[in-house]
Amino acid sequence: MTRTELHQQMLQKQSFLCVGLDTDIHKLPKHLLTERDPILTFNRAIIDATADLAVAYKPNLAFYETLGIRGWESLQASLEYIPSDCFTIADAKRGDIGNTADMYARAFFKTYAFDSVTVNPYMGKDSVTPFLDYEGKWAIVLGLTSNPGAADFQYFEGHNEKLYSHAIKKMASWGSPDNMMFVVGATRADEFASIRAMVPDNFFLVPGVGAQGGSLAEVYKHGANSQIGLLVNASRSILYASSGKDFAEAARAEALRLQQEMAALMATK
Amino acid sequence: MTRTELHQQMLQKQSFLCVGLDTDIHKLPKHLLTERDPILTFNRAIIDATADLAVAYKPNLAFYETLGIRGWESLQASLEYIPSDCFTIADAKRGDIGNTADMYARAFFKTYAFDSVTVNPYMGKDSVTPFLDYEGKWAIVLGLTSNPGAADFQYFEGHNEKLYSHAIKKMASWGSPDNMMFVVGATRADEFASIRAMVPDNFFLVPGVGAQGGSLAEVYKHGANSQIGLLVNASRSILYASSGKDFAEAARAEALRLQQEMAALMATK
Repeated sequence: MTRTELHQQMLQKQSFLCVGLDTDIHKLPKHLLTERDPILTFNRAIIDATADLAVAYKPNLAFYETLGIRGWESLQASLEYIPSDCFTIADAKRGDIGNTADMYARAFFKTYAFDSVTVNPYMGKDSVTPFLDYEGKWAIVLGLTSNPGAADFQYFEGHNEKLYSHAIKKMASWGSPDNMMFVVGATRADEFASIRAMVPDNFFLVPGVGAQGGSLAEVYKHGANSQIGLLVNASRSILYASSGKDFAEAARAEALRLQQEMAALMATK
Repeated sequence: MTRTELHQQMLQKQSFLCVGLDTDIHKLPKHLLTERDPILTFNRAIIDATADLAVAYKPNLAFYETLGIRGWESLQASLEYIPSDCFTIADAKRGDIGNTADMYARAFFKTYAFDSVTVNPYMGKDSVTPFLDYEGKWAIVLGLTSNPGAADFQYFEGHNEKLYSHAIKKMASWGSPDNMMFVVGATRADEFASIRAMVPDNFFLVPGVGAQGGSLAEVYKHGANSQIGLLVNASRSILYASSGKDFAEAARAEALRLQQEMAALMATK
């Protein structure tokens, strides 16, 4: 999916919502557990309930991998169920030396037909560039993450700037706004404006709204660009809005609340 | 597997060789391609040919993931075929926020029964510690990697030291020599002695001997400790020593050459 197509979808849906499919077998409504594939049944219901409100879906691969081979079967079937107008993100945080990164890129873009994959850039350029070689596909590299541990290394002080700042500028030179996005946590409101100034045209994938406490209005204020430039993810707050038989309706209500807040923000600039 | 058990195995086999199962379907001997599961057949032959010479096996997960579900089937069957006295490493470079890292730890230690998993620490403490909570299991965190891209961020200059040096010391405080090893590339001979001084008791997983050009003698000289403290990995040089029907014999010959060099080094200190 191209950047223009993604932006067009956002205008049409009046949304920049990404639904994180962090589907945990232990948190599913009990009545689903007798299904042949409870994860897939749950994901289909969530997708049906939110596909007109969300522009992207982001399965978190750990939740599938932990189930072994049947988890990968659930993942593949869930991916195939996502409507083709929606952007898909393999939240995999992959990163390894060049010949291995080649294999991961092939896995997510060819074996599975994801539009994008999250990439951990710690091993440097040859671990990132293999993900940039596929037309219409995207590497979503870690810019500044939303978790407490970001302080340990991403905030490491260099002579003139912190590591994350050095890394974002360096990575931007490896790709373009048409094949590289950055993960920037919604809990980093203080840094959002300065990161946007470094990479004015790249999209940001923004986790941390909802369960982690980030503010959507702050993210939009400091992070939006002329193409919106944001994919704001919500996972737990949507997936587990209700643990009963009305889980899909409750998920839709939460997604709708977020979409309406997004539409209101989009009207402001 | 405990540190003492690993050391005992090394003494018995006079080896600290890890065989990297970076099994690439495109590099297999042609006569195997008619097998039901060529990857598994190949891995079994490699394991049979080297199990008395190697103390560890390290499947590189990208090579399995790229094949989709049948790749995971090959991986699981290969893992089950590895003799129980050998240490097993899931070379996965995983790393994510706490609740997701929990899932990855469960995946590799419970769903698959690996002894250890390689972990990318860029997201900090909460991305690493979930891997340290399993008795007899190991997190193998990135210390200083062997690839050219290591220069981009791992060598980032802080006020007093480079990032990798800061990171190794910080990570060592999160775990112990009984649940944490470090990846240190064999191509980093200049830094080996100083890294060993920082973490005298932790094992190092050392890629980069062979195809990437690192020297085994240099690694041993600067990296060995009283329990040897090294797992030196060779992948391509063993797996693809021959592309013909004699691939297993050729793999054994290369593994034997490395084991004999290791035994000679072990006799020196």
